[in-house]
Amino acid sequence: MSLFRLLPDKVDVIQNNNKPDEKGTLREWLYITIFQSSTPLGKLFDVLLSIAIIQNIGLLMLESVPSIGFKYGHIFRVLDYFFLFLFSIEYLLRLYCVKSTKRYATSFYGIVDLLAILPSYLEFIYPQWHVLMVIRSFRLLRLFRIFKMVKFLDESRILMFTFIRSFRKILIFLFFVVLLTIFLGSLMYVVEFEKNDGFHSIPQSIYWSIVTITTVGYGDVAPVTALGKMIASFIMILGYSIIAVPTGIMSASFMEQTKHLRMDIKCGNCGSGNHSADAVFCKKCGKKLVADAQEDDKNV
Amino acid sequence: MSLFRLLPDKVDVIQNNNKPDEKGTLREWLYITIFQSSTPLGKLFDVLLSIAIIQNIGLLMLESVPSIGFKYGHIFRVLDYFFLFLFSIEYLLRLYCVKSTKRYATSFYGIVDLLAILPSYLEFIYPQWHVLMVIRSFRLLRLFRIFKMVKFLDESRILMFTFIRSFRKILIFLFFVVLLTIFLGSLMYVVEFEKNDGFHSIPQSIYWSIVTITTVGYGDVAPVTALGKMIASFIMILGYSIIAVPTGIMSASFMEQTKHLRMDIKCGNCGSGNHSADAVFCKKCGKKLVADAQEDDKNV
Amino acid sequence: MSLFRLLPDKVDVIQNNNKPDEKGTLREWLYITIFQSSTPLGKLFDVLLSIAIIQNIGLLMLESVPSIGFKYGHIFRVLDYFFLFLFSIEYLLRLYCVKSTKRYATSFYGIVDLLAILPSYLEFIYPQWHVLMVIRSFRLLRLFRIFKMVKFLDESRILMFTFIRSFRKILIFLFFVVLLTIFLGSLMYVVEFEKNDGFHSIPQSIYWSIVTITTVGYGDVAPVTALGKMIASFIMILGYSIIAVPTGIMSASFMEQTKHLRMDIKCGNCGSGNHSADAVFCKKCGKKLVADAQEDDKNV
Amino acid sequence: MSLFRLLPDKVDVIQNNNKPDEKGTLREWLYITIFQSSTPLGKLFDVLLSIAIIQNIGLLMLESVPSIGFKYGHIFRVLDYFFLFLFSIEYLLRLYCVKSTKRYATSFYGIVDLLAILPSYLEFIYPQWHVLMVIRSFRLLRLFRIFKMVKFLDESRILMFTFIRSFRKILIFLFFVVLLTIFLGSLMYVVEFEKNDGFHSIPQSIYWSIVTITTVGYGDVAPVTALGKMIASFIMILGYSIIAVPTGIMSASFMEQTKHLRMDIKCGNCGSGNHSADAVFCKKCGKKLVADAQEDDKNV
Repeated sequence: MSLFRLLPDKVDVIQNNNKPDEKGTLREWLYITIFQSSTPLGKLFDVLLSIAIIQNIGLLMLESVPSIGFKYGHIFRVLDYFFLFLFSIEYLLRLYCVKSTKRYATSFYGIVDLLAILPSYLEFIYPQWHVLMVIRSFRLLRLFRIFKMVKFLDESRILMFTFIRSFRKILIFLFFVVLLTIFLGSLMYVVEFEKNDGFHSIPQSIYWSIVTITTVGYGDVAPVTALGKMIASFIMILGYSIIAVPTGIMSASFMEQTKHLRMDIKCGNCGSGNHSADAVFCKKCGKKLVADAQEDDKNV
Repeated sequence: MSLFRLLPDKVDVIQNNNKPDEKGTLREWLYITIFQSSTPLGKLFDVLLSIAIIQNIGLLMLESVPSIGFKYGHIFRVLDYFFLFLFSIEYLLRLYCVKSTKRYATSFYGIVDLLAILPSYLEFIYPQWHVLMVIRSFRLLRLFRIFKMVKFLDESRILMFTFIRSFRKILIFLFFVVLLTIFLGSLMYVVEFEKNDGFHSIPQSIYWSIVTITTVGYGDVAPVTALGKMIASFIMILGYSIIAVPTGIMSASFMEQTKHLRMDIKCGNCGSGNHSADAVFCKKCGKKLVADAQEDDKNV
Repeated sequence: MSLFRLLPDKVDVIQNNNKPDEKGTLREWLYITIFQSSTPLGKLFDVLLSIAIIQNIGLLMLESVPSIGFKYGHIFRVLDYFFLFLFSIEYLLRLYCVKSTKRYATSFYGIVDLLAILPSYLEFIYPQWHVLMVIRSFRLLRLFRIFKMVKFLDESRILMFTFIRSFRKILIFLFFVVLLTIFLGSLMYVVEFEKNDGFHSIPQSIYWSIVTITTVGYGDVAPVTALGKMIASFIMILGYSIIAVPTGIMSASFMEQTKHLRMDIKCGNCGSGNHSADAVFCKKCGKKLVADAQEDDKNV
Repeated sequence: MSLFRLLPDKVDVIQNNNKPDEKGTLREWLYITIFQSSTPLGKLFDVLLSIAIIQNIGLLMLESVPSIGFKYGHIFRVLDYFFLFLFSIEYLLRLYCVKSTKRYATSFYGIVDLLAILPSYLEFIYPQWHVLMVIRSFRLLRLFRIFKMVKFLDESRILMFTFIRSFRKILIFLFFVVLLTIFLGSLMYVVEFEKNDGFHSIPQSIYWSIVTITTVGYGDVAPVTALGKMIASFIMILGYSIIAVPTGIMSASFMEQTKHLRMDIKCGNCGSGNHSADAVFCKKCGKKLVADAQEDDKNV
């Protein structure tokens, strides 16, 4: 999640630094089209690339289904080569049009773009590495670019900031949950391991207690002794209750966020409220907005 | 959910436009009875129609149970014909009493009403289409009319607005969750597919990761390798934690809603608060209410 | 839940009306001891009765375990008779000491008390009715009396009021969820019933969709077709998202509750805040508290 | 959770009282290093001890895996002895350097430290007690010491206080849930026990109703009768709805906490807000901050 926050901004900075000096050249035109979405062509490129990525991932998925993969194997091979060619060209163009090739190549998206084509080349040498092509699914992160063009940007910013602000609290909670699952898993191992093959080792028991406390409950492992069932009941009720903790943290965090967005500034002229946080003039009567405290100040 | 919001209003508009010009005729009487619920007879029609719909859906359900369906097959057939006749009459009356037949026929509820009877007629030609009768369950949407007559209307309005307001944030969250399940599902495929028949393809692995991250946990597919169980544990704890995000969004949204309903207007005469948002006079002393900001204004 | 609210108060009223007129008699002493908890003996009676109820329920549970029930059958029979005798005496004493016997006998707790002993007497005539003794577990409601004596009363009041206030919103949500499960269950029946024995009828499919949307996920029924798995994934993500709705409703309701408890009254003399809602004088300096609005009023 | 709160502080007090009187001696140096983390060496000791504990627990887990445990049994035995020696030395040093040996030995951490080594010594006499070594996992609580050194301390304080404040409300909720599971479990026993081996006794049925109401849903026990499935559906929807209660409690509690941290103090000079609760001077213009109420006071 921390990646999620850092990347877009970091990449933006890299891109700005990477912007070639010459103006009006093919290189700059390519740069603007590929890396930015300010021009219609840039937007089109983003959309087409997103479609290509989705199609490629879709093909990889279908190929992995045995009944389809065996039947149309040759078609998938051809399409794999097609997308490999497409993404290779795209990668080379990206390398060409940025100012600092090294900087792009070592950036997060640079590595993701490389990883999307590398396994396919390695496959020529080691055919058994074909399965590595799933790494390509990381390219789906590029889809976040689409959000940049639409109104979703603000919302996703708010989501990120809110999550990051409460990240530390949630981490402590998760540490506590992990400790609990280790305790309870070890306990269940002692209680059940002689009568239940499912609890054959402590790691397995901890796996079971995670399955239980998160209320997932596969049922591949389940207690059989009376004491085991009582402890399991306790773990379930515990998991059912403590989910309130991260939820409460996030709720408070979102409320805080909402408050900051709609500050309690009211127009001193017409009394209308609910102005956005960055408003300077009243949206109803146009008079300059002043915060309440300053208003009171004048009274004194 | 967006349907839920748009439909009732849209339909109301259509109905008002559809209202026949003549007054006091059978056609207008029929229109008021069938489409509106302002008259006692209109209310009765709504209630009776709702009961008929529920009974019809109940019969369809019972008929699908093999042991009951085979035994009382002929009774079900007779009742099917009865409800087909009833709903056909209702549909024809609706077509007759509205001004613009075409407008009703192409409206949402018009199509739902048609779909409720069409499959039964098609069944005479293609008996294997009998299963299409489940489309009738869409008619249950008509039950929302009942809410119009009771106090639940305001509450459901608030629910809808709150949900719609936070819809975009929840959509981004869901997009993020879907990306996560694709990543983690692909990863699990690579880790498990050789040792576990359950993970036989990437789509199946993604299905498993959705089952896991939403804490449903059927257990029809479960990891068997040590690494797979570790990744699964991570996915479970992730799913258990990030459910806090939509919950936090909705909580903040409902809080915001509550705030708007009970504005901070306090009576300038007796100081009592908690007036409803549309109150003009104090509910305790009867003096005219003024918002705080205006109050301050006078001070200046 | 509505029962939970109404009962204690309703019973209190009944008790007060039922209080015998004579003072200082055995009947009044019994009444105070059995029905009230103001005297030490009354408290002792409540505690002892609670213990007896818990032990009785515990015995019923143990008796139902085949391995224990068969082995110690005669002990359980003796203990059953003992508790039958105890609760019969208690019921007769209750009938004796209240003023209006009929009123108590037809009150909620009166019926619960009767139901706790009636099946055991009927068992002498119809031995196969032994299983009806589980009705006794309703007597556990008497445990709520214990709360009356401790500080938990206020908290449980707040819990109840908050729940009741948002009950209507949650009901609409549940109605919507039930409609959804009927739609999606019917849809899954059409998709899966030919290839999957688990979806053998529409009610069964609706049962499955409830299991899925509530994220319970037993796994006794699971989709097998590709389309079925896609619909199932959609249902899971839906269920995972919309749980935010009741949670948001309750969060807003609890926040509202908290606000009412700690009104924004600040002392005009020393400026200290956080007074309880019913405070009239400042808890720090003892000066009379006035609401903000009145304070402003004086300025004018 | 109550343990979680009480322990660290309680131990701190014990340590301060236990601090030896002599200054500059080896005993005091040992005390500061082992019990405190104010010196670099003290911090190093805490980190090293944490690593040793984690490694020890990790070894215990690996040892319990049959395939690994049998193969490398002798290595595990040697490492067990090594950690036994290490923790024994540590325990003896702790006993030596505190002033009141008895006080430490009877404190919570004193008992945990003893329990970490005792089973290993007992194992020499009773080899079948080897499984008791899982008690060592309690030593993981020592990891909370690490938090003391980093910024997580404040956050975990807030988490604890918030949880404790709403603990009573959550307890009432859980009591209600437990009553519900007993009612519904008993009911399901009556409905299912003749046709379903899974519901062979009331305790088993209650176990099933806990599994269901907490949305865990193992699927090892599932209803088979139509009535049983209807009741199960009701329990699932109930569990899905009432999870909103603890979540709402915690959300309100966290909101309350947030409010206290960021009091509504605004600078009287520059009008900037959002000062931290303990701020005395404005972070923007440096003028002394006064609370709003006091500001109003001057007006009067």
